[in-house]
Amino acid sequence: MSRRKSRFLRKPVEPFTISAGATADDLLARMERISFQGRNLATARRIWERMLGSDVTIFLGTAGALSAGGMRLIIAHLIEHRYIDCLVSTGANLYHDLHETRGRRHFIGSPTLDDAALAAERIDRVYDTLASEDEFCRNDEWIASFVLKLEKRPYTSREFLFKLGEHLWKETDNRGILTAAYRANVPIFCPAIADSSIGMGLSQARHRDQTAGQIDVIGDIIESANIVIRRPSTASIVLGGGTPKNFINQASVQAEFYSDRVTGHKYALQIVTDVPHYGGASGSSLEEAQSWGKLSIESERATVHSDVTLALPLLVTALETTMKDTIAKRKRIEFDASGRLLIINGQPLPDNRYHQDT
Amino acid sequence: MSRRKSRFLRKPVEPFTISAGATADDLLARMERISFQGRNLATARRIWERMLGSDVTIFLGTAGALSAGGMRLIIAHLIEHRYIDCLVSTGANLYHDLHETRGRRHFIGSPTLDDAALAAERIDRVYDTLASEDEFCRNDEWIASFVLKLEKRPYTSREFLFKLGEHLWKETDNRGILTAAYRANVPIFCPAIADSSIGMGLSQARHRDQTAGQIDVIGDIIESANIVIRRPSTASIVLGGGTPKNFINQASVQAEFYSDRVTGHKYALQIVTDVPHYGGASGSSLEEAQSWGKLSIESERATVHSDVTLALPLLVTALETTMKDTIAKRKRIEFDASGRLLIINGQPLPDNRYHQDT
Amino acid sequence: MSRRKSRFLRKPVEPFTISAGATADDLLARMERISFQGRNLATARRIWERMLGSDVTIFLGTAGALSAGGMRLIIAHLIEHRYIDCLVSTGANLYHDLHETRGRRHFIGSPTLDDAALAAERIDRVYDTLASEDEFCRNDEWIASFVLKLEKRPYTSREFLFKLGEHLWKETDNRGILTAAYRANVPIFCPAIADSSIGMGLSQARHRDQTAGQIDVIGDIIESANIVIRRPSTASIVLGGGTPKNFINQASVQAEFYSDRVTGHKYALQIVTDVPHYGGASGSSLEEAQSWGKLSIESERATVHSDVTLALPLLVTALETTMKDTIAKRKRIEFDASGRLLIINGQPLPDNRYHQDT
Amino acid sequence: MSRRKSRFLRKPVEPFTISAGATADDLLARMERISFQGRNLATARRIWERMLGSDVTIFLGTAGALSAGGMRLIIAHLIEHRYIDCLVSTGANLYHDLHETRGRRHFIGSPTLDDAALAAERIDRVYDTLASEDEFCRNDEWIASFVLKLEKRPYTSREFLFKLGEHLWKETDNRGILTAAYRANVPIFCPAIADSSIGMGLSQARHRDQTAGQIDVIGDIIESANIVIRRPSTASIVLGGGTPKNFINQASVQAEFYSDRVTGHKYALQIVTDVPHYGGASGSSLEEAQSWGKLSIESERATVHSDVTLALPLLVTALETTMKDTIAKRKRIEFDASGRLLIINGQPLPDNRYHQDT
Repeated sequence: MSRRKSRFLRKPVEPFTISAGATADDLLARMERISFQGRNLATARRIWERMLGSDVTIFLGTAGALSAGGMRLIIAHLIEHRYIDCLVSTGANLYHDLHETRGRRHFIGSPTLDDAALAAERIDRVYDTLASEDEFCRNDEWIASFVLKLEKRPYTSREFLFKLGEHLWKETDNRGILTAAYRANVPIFCPAIADSSIGMGLSQARHRDQTAGQIDVIGDIIESANIVIRRPSTASIVLGGGTPKNFINQASVQAEFYSDRVTGHKYALQIVTDVPHYGGASGSSLEEAQSWGKLSIESERATVHSDVTLALPLLVTALETTMKDTIAKRKRIEFDASGRLLIINGQPLPDNRYHQDT
Repeated sequence: MSRRKSRFLRKPVEPFTISAGATADDLLARMERISFQGRNLATARRIWERMLGSDVTIFLGTAGALSAGGMRLIIAHLIEHRYIDCLVSTGANLYHDLHETRGRRHFIGSPTLDDAALAAERIDRVYDTLASEDEFCRNDEWIASFVLKLEKRPYTSREFLFKLGEHLWKETDNRGILTAAYRANVPIFCPAIADSSIGMGLSQARHRDQTAGQIDVIGDIIESANIVIRRPSTASIVLGGGTPKNFINQASVQAEFYSDRVTGHKYALQIVTDVPHYGGASGSSLEEAQSWGKLSIESERATVHSDVTLALPLLVTALETTMKDTIAKRKRIEFDASGRLLIINGQPLPDNRYHQDT
Repeated sequence: MSRRKSRFLRKPVEPFTISAGATADDLLARMERISFQGRNLATARRIWERMLGSDVTIFLGTAGALSAGGMRLIIAHLIEHRYIDCLVSTGANLYHDLHETRGRRHFIGSPTLDDAALAAERIDRVYDTLASEDEFCRNDEWIASFVLKLEKRPYTSREFLFKLGEHLWKETDNRGILTAAYRANVPIFCPAIADSSIGMGLSQARHRDQTAGQIDVIGDIIESANIVIRRPSTASIVLGGGTPKNFINQASVQAEFYSDRVTGHKYALQIVTDVPHYGGASGSSLEEAQSWGKLSIESERATVHSDVTLALPLLVTALETTMKDTIAKRKRIEFDASGRLLIINGQPLPDNRYHQDT
Repeated sequence: MSRRKSRFLRKPVEPFTISAGATADDLLARMERISFQGRNLATARRIWERMLGSDVTIFLGTAGALSAGGMRLIIAHLIEHRYIDCLVSTGANLYHDLHETRGRRHFIGSPTLDDAALAAERIDRVYDTLASEDEFCRNDEWIASFVLKLEKRPYTSREFLFKLGEHLWKETDNRGILTAAYRANVPIFCPAIADSSIGMGLSQARHRDQTAGQIDVIGDIIESANIVIRRPSTASIVLGGGTPKNFINQASVQAEFYSDRVTGHKYALQIVTDVPHYGGASGSSLEEAQSWGKLSIESERATVHSDVTLALPLLVTALETTMKDTIAKRKRIEFDASGRLLIINGQPLPDNRYHQDT
């Protein structure tokens, strides 16, 4: 074999071998040497490990029906143990989390149920999963009542969601995404909060009191970029794409506008089912993100084309098995997300202004 | 053949036959009798025709890189000729529309270009399409300057986008989505405006003046539901899924909460590339939407699994060929979208309150 | 703008504009300047035009339920007018073609029909399309009877399918894929004939006469490669992927083994719904095919990610509109597919041997 | 909650919880109570368990680049331990298995490598995996030499592949799919053998000796259906779709034609990435298969929409953990696949004839 040829053919595929009792860690370790999406998931795990061992702020984006689909306590776990530092989510994932934290449930159904029959029973279907619409309506009212008790002024989604998590924790003592974020002081942004049942609850408060329910989503843009400006080494983990994927990237692009130290995420993972070739942002490749400066040119990155419900349990279980020590000594950014101004490592961010290096 | 059997086997597939010079109308007429997504597109056209001939308010949702991808003048056409009554869009589609209305361009590229080289030249890639990042930065500044001139108070995205379209029209005299909506007084909602470069422009205004850039996305929820309450016969046309798909459905669900006359969209079309089986809202089936009451049980509906850039030019060209008369005599809802309160058929909507039937 | 930058930003996207009465040709002409799969389809049309104007043998591969789905007379048209020179097909497409050529029909159904009810009526479903199982059984018998009349010796699928088309034409006088290929002397290969109802018919003949139904699929490999060796300028058009896609590429790779003049297809188009990232051949990229030598490094190529039923009617109608003259003066390879040895331009191919250049 | 409503809302989703050291069995046990494709994989495991505990012949179909992608020793394991009884495969999976069993390797690459550079080095790419073309050519010659030594008569693919496995085992003593099947006397069918490099090797033998390389794929159809007729309780496990999926179903449909005892597979699993809505067989639903009688109306079934490289390692590891005893006492069909006539439980199948009940 020529030298040039051998340059390409260095590392053989190792066929996966079956062992009884193999753990998530074992599985992913073997999958590093296979191909296609199995290898990509194994690579994603190694990149996440390197994120945890290095000095970066880790953003997690969550889209798709992850909470309804049984992923909410994995996300809570990632927050509680600080596998991540900041969450950007769709409203639906936070709403379905709130639903379960309040003691309600989603139910096992099937994609072939008769939707007219479900509608007659006021049961809402999410593919193979069901929930009671009446319980959803009571959630909306519960949110509206909470909103009416808040001081009447604009809130970033981050401040609002902190207070919502606090209220939920005090009322229920239950684990969930919102309560975990409250307890760990991890900020949550919800840039499309108006497109969700949390937004509907806010609007119902407004209906009763015209000064209630003010959410300052433009403030969220500034705050998220300031997080990047204050500590420009960042990483992005995206589950499902959607508005969280773009918002996390936008924070980096916007930060670069105000600070020369920002050069794009150093690590990027995504588990998505969308594909690049229709041009939409959810399916866009991590290479494309480099052209925008969303990712640094030298970034480590992996895309896993998979349903999150298949890939995430395996991925996080493997991390939990091997990363205990790394997590314990991780250099974490510390937030205080409780007030109007987000506080990072003891210092508040500027008020409605981008932080500028001097 | 038994009678029961013949019940199923009534309408034969007619193989598509080729004729030189066939028009979009001819193609879709023949495609009604084939199978799979070709038939679905032909069915979508007939349903849209029936929408136009009946007494409904038609919502259009646009997600994915439609403006960058060359679809913006089709959407402008749909607004100008009132094939639709209300637009719900991602911010990116409006931003890329603004970019071109301001005289800038997107460019033909390729998905295999070297992203490091593009980054070095400050060129942003959207799959096979390119744009200048410097021009984007100047758009952001243009938006910020406009925002700073506005009275400092909260605006729904609908009011803000009307004023943006007005300003754009006065400055450029160019056709586009925003300018068409301004001229036709068609409301545009952008529930995830914070997740877009329009949001970034707003945030840059805020940076300069801390009272600028207030967008009231909760007000959008109330306003969009009030549109449904005032005229409960509605239709939904969704291109690409995303936040617009859910927001249009949410308006119907929220309206039903306040008005017994609301029973879900009577017609629904979607052209999407996502699939139902991962549970996300973008790919969810129109049948699933019935369980939630988003669509009425008797709704006419069609899902086309296709890239919008393939399906939409054919679909709208066919409608344009056959619907001239129908469009001319269509019973349209009339908006005045220029002020703080949206005015429908001469009557303003309630101020920060859901319209309630009495 | 710097010179290097302007190198990338040369050709602007031109937003698609709507005109009543626009033809397929008009639509695709405009779609050349948009993005994503719309542009890819427009590009595919130009590449097919250049194929027709140049001196190449054009292979067409057909997989997926194209005949059941209403595409069979488009394929017949491509054969009759020699838009293509050689067909490689799954057995199902030829079988469903035979079904309709024999006067039977497929029927318009729906993907949500009750399959237990269909099974009870002996109705077979292909997504949204139906057919009578009893009629299918009679086709199988019809094929078996025909096979039993043939001389008992091995036949390549190409020779067998020619004789089947001949028999079908003599009995029915109806247009279809098999009859068009018989009349135009265009060879059809069916490498996976054992995986189809045509194979089942052959096996039923064997059941009655143990010397009947001998198909020499290894002979097909040699013959298809010899077609390439005899005229090494080739093009590949693939609809749906599957065995035809690989078989057409394999012919080129195998031919290269015996002839230095063969350097891979000069043009390649594919309309597929599969994606590359799972590693399967159906979704593999045309760039990957270059590494194997299936495509020449300088090949012109386009992949359209679309359902064939959406893209093909538009594509072939546009070609028919503009290519009349080109087709009339096309330099065509001439086959005589009627005998044991395939004859090309008057000269038979070697008997069970690769043609070797001397 | 009304009784009717509670009928739907019985079994709550249980959010997945993370534990360090969790095994594949643990993961899948928890995934039974989540949603979407995660739940489907967990369900698939339970169905496979029930297959193993009941009196059925289990067919496995393998399509996609599974052997190149590192799955071949899992398939060998399934054969050796008789998790399955009969394999239907594409030729490529057997060829890439042979490549590695002969001591050659596939290599870790990337989907973004330069294909012109690879072509220059004669390296073939399968998405992110590489192999040496020269080694492939030597495999072809190795196959041709073996074929030339065989008695010159027609062989079903099943008989041929048994002999190929035997030769490979005697020469290499290495584990793999072909050698495992030889040693366990598990039949392998390859209905599209002409569309593969094994077919190319056979054709090269034919080139040297015009009586060599006769493969009787029509005989395969009869033999596979006779396996079903002799023991009509069957199950189907499909990885990737393609010709194996249809061939396994066809065996059942063809068997039903000759035996009233055959009523469709009793269990069916598929792990596929294709979707139903384009009408192709690879993505077709298991419900659709019921309309054809391929599956019994009461069949237990699960579709997992996933890349096989992600789902299969987890699935088979879990089975290996819990099924040891069940496997040990499984009621297995016993084959002797070594001769011209396949022998089942000591009795040869009819010679070129369907077995008919009397």
